[in-house]
Amino acid sequence: MYFSCPQNVLATNLGFVSRAVAARPSHPILANILLETDGEGGNVSLTAFDLNLGIQVKFPAVITQEGSITLPSRLLNDIVSRLPEAEVTLQVDLDTSTAVLLCGSGRYELRGLPAAEFPQLPQISQGQISYLPVEAILAGVNGSLFAAANDETKRVLTGVHVKVQPQGLEFAATDGHRLAVVEIPYSEEEAALPPQAVANLEVTVPARALRELERMLHHYGEGMIAVQFDETQMVFQGVQQMLTARLLDGVYPDYNRLIPQQFKYQVTIERKTFVGALERVAVLADQKNNIVKITIDELNQEIALAVDTPEVAAGKESLPAQVAGGNLEIAFNVKYLLDGLKAVNTTDVILQMNTPTSPAVLKPIGGTKITYLVMPVQIRV
Amino acid sequence: MYFSCPQNVLATNLGFVSRAVAARPSHPILANILLETDGEGGNVSLTAFDLNLGIQVKFPAVITQEGSITLPSRLLNDIVSRLPEAEVTLQVDLDTSTAVLLCGSGRYELRGLPAAEFPQLPQISQGQISYLPVEAILAGVNGSLFAAANDETKRVLTGVHVKVQPQGLEFAATDGHRLAVVEIPYSEEEAALPPQAVANLEVTVPARALRELERMLHHYGEGMIAVQFDETQMVFQGVQQMLTARLLDGVYPDYNRLIPQQFKYQVTIERKTFVGALERVAVLADQKNNIVKITIDELNQEIALAVDTPEVAAGKESLPAQVAGGNLEIAFNVKYLLDGLKAVNTTDVILQMNTPTSPAVLKPIGGTKITYLVMPVQIRV
Repeated sequence: MYFSCPQNVLATNLGFVSRAVAARPSHPILANILLETDGEGGNVSLTAFDLNLGIQVKFPAVITQEGSITLPSRLLNDIVSRLPEAEVTLQVDLDTSTAVLLCGSGRYELRGLPAAEFPQLPQISQGQISYLPVEAILAGVNGSLFAAANDETKRVLTGVHVKVQPQGLEFAATDGHRLAVVEIPYSEEEAALPPQAVANLEVTVPARALRELERMLHHYGEGMIAVQFDETQMVFQGVQQMLTARLLDGVYPDYNRLIPQQFKYQVTIERKTFVGALERVAVLADQKNNIVKITIDELNQEIALAVDTPEVAAGKESLPAQVAGGNLEIAFNVKYLLDGLKAVNTTDVILQMNTPTSPAVLKPIGGTKITYLVMPVQIRV
Repeated sequence: MYFSCPQNVLATNLGFVSRAVAARPSHPILANILLETDGEGGNVSLTAFDLNLGIQVKFPAVITQEGSITLPSRLLNDIVSRLPEAEVTLQVDLDTSTAVLLCGSGRYELRGLPAAEFPQLPQISQGQISYLPVEAILAGVNGSLFAAANDETKRVLTGVHVKVQPQGLEFAATDGHRLAVVEIPYSEEEAALPPQAVANLEVTVPARALRELERMLHHYGEGMIAVQFDETQMVFQGVQQMLTARLLDGVYPDYNRLIPQQFKYQVTIERKTFVGALERVAVLADQKNNIVKITIDELNQEIALAVDTPEVAAGKESLPAQVAGGNLEIAFNVKYLLDGLKAVNTTDVILQMNTPTSPAVLKPIGGTKITYLVMPVQIRV
């Protein structure tokens, strides 16, 4: 194996795939990246795989001799990213699994492991290929991922539940305290394209895989991406990039029945003003239990946010709002409210409530259809 | 006490002084910042003091009622920095030591402690005032501070030794493995100014105080700053800002006698090229003991940097250099070399050596006069 390419091409692609390298590899080869020439197209491919998440990228290179090897990800990354902006040559002695990296004044010899020992990325033999709009996936991930559980013991809740339906996509995430649901209908153009979606696809994708998918799609740009899946795996196939994710097992909660259909109280408020005021009272709420009390005042068409930490400090913010339904006192975990408000980008949002102890819903006005359900916190009067 | 000022003025000044607030205060009031009106000038002053380092700033404000109070630094900072860009009003009830902060839609009540309980910043009654050039202090700190010991048990070595002499300033720092000495002669203009320097001033200033002084002087700009000191304290007095530092006790090593006066070998090399190559071999050196082997080759007028971590990787960089004195093999801790090379900003540097086991010296060519002494590492052949 022998190829050359510009330093920045190799550095960028190594940086990209290395995110799928296991932090604590259970086997030495899982700390490595697989480098392969593709035999004909003049491309080099890099693959990283931690047995759950796999990332593969291809890039053009001047290939003098075909071949493949695995090399330690961190060392290779750290050296290549520091090389001068010049042509890099990688020369591999397959007998000794040793690679020599040449660039400018430097010569680096790295001991690797044979490519044959590297685990294969999962192949999906059955199941048709769907094409999904990149923009829709990004909007769905962005509007839901933050609400997934961080606690690994919550298993299926650590992922985002994705439904591919004939009319569009639905993304949902919940950690048991709040729930975000994003509905993205296909555009007429998208819906008119050949069979792009499979009715009744419902999978739960791990948060980590979606974070990497987000990164990949940001580079990928607009258009459609090919998606293939079976019971256990999902594969996103771009032109130069591929991501495979092992799906999360288990039944995802039937979240739609948790969302109230009718509300007694409704507050429409400027989002950035609401965020600013919440962030200030959060400084005090952080001292105690993160609870902010919201007083909704229909007469004055305003809401007041209050936090009281006796003996230390007290804060109050009064904000103009369009209030309908009457007056109400209700309390929330301020962090949950902020998470939801920051996941949307519209000018205004609407907060809908029934009682101080039943679920409230926050929605952007305009933009992507996001329904963010938050449970209020019960406070002693 | 009652004053108003723009939010960004209060936020900036709070952020600046808060760096002197103790991380783990031994007494509740040391977690607070002292706020005072100055009685006549229409200024508010903020003071933080951890009993070693003290910082005070003054800024103009609209003062409606004179007074003083101490308020919790972190809470005050966190709230004020998040307030909208508008006028902030601080209203203090001295009887209850409670402050009310008003800005835009918000009202924040903070419980403080009486100003009388706040420890006084050290006063230096005797000792004349010197005026030192800000540029010279910055150059001296920048060229030496990095070589001070981080390990608190090394006491006097955790500071920078400063000598104020009639002809200029000298800064020195060492952690026992390397030594940086910066000599800064006064310009003719500076030397001609009225008694600005005190012969034989020798003090050791804690690294933390110098880091904060650096920050303060970067804002302070050019010109001279007043410096006053006695056996235990040093006070830097700017127009709006003041910094007091408790000096480090103990005899500072007589470092000048450690610096060899003559050298057998001499290498002149482009600094950035040297840094780049060292950073790459450092990736490998980091795997083992941080040792880089340097082979100095007079015939080919080049030096080679080599790191070998058997079974993992090996790296070599060859760099053009002006070599005088013959061939030599010598090894260094790569981190120490990099620290010294990064503390200077000249195009070229000179490395002078005698034997593989005696001190080497690195100097910038041009720029500030810095002498950086590094002990080589003995390697088995």
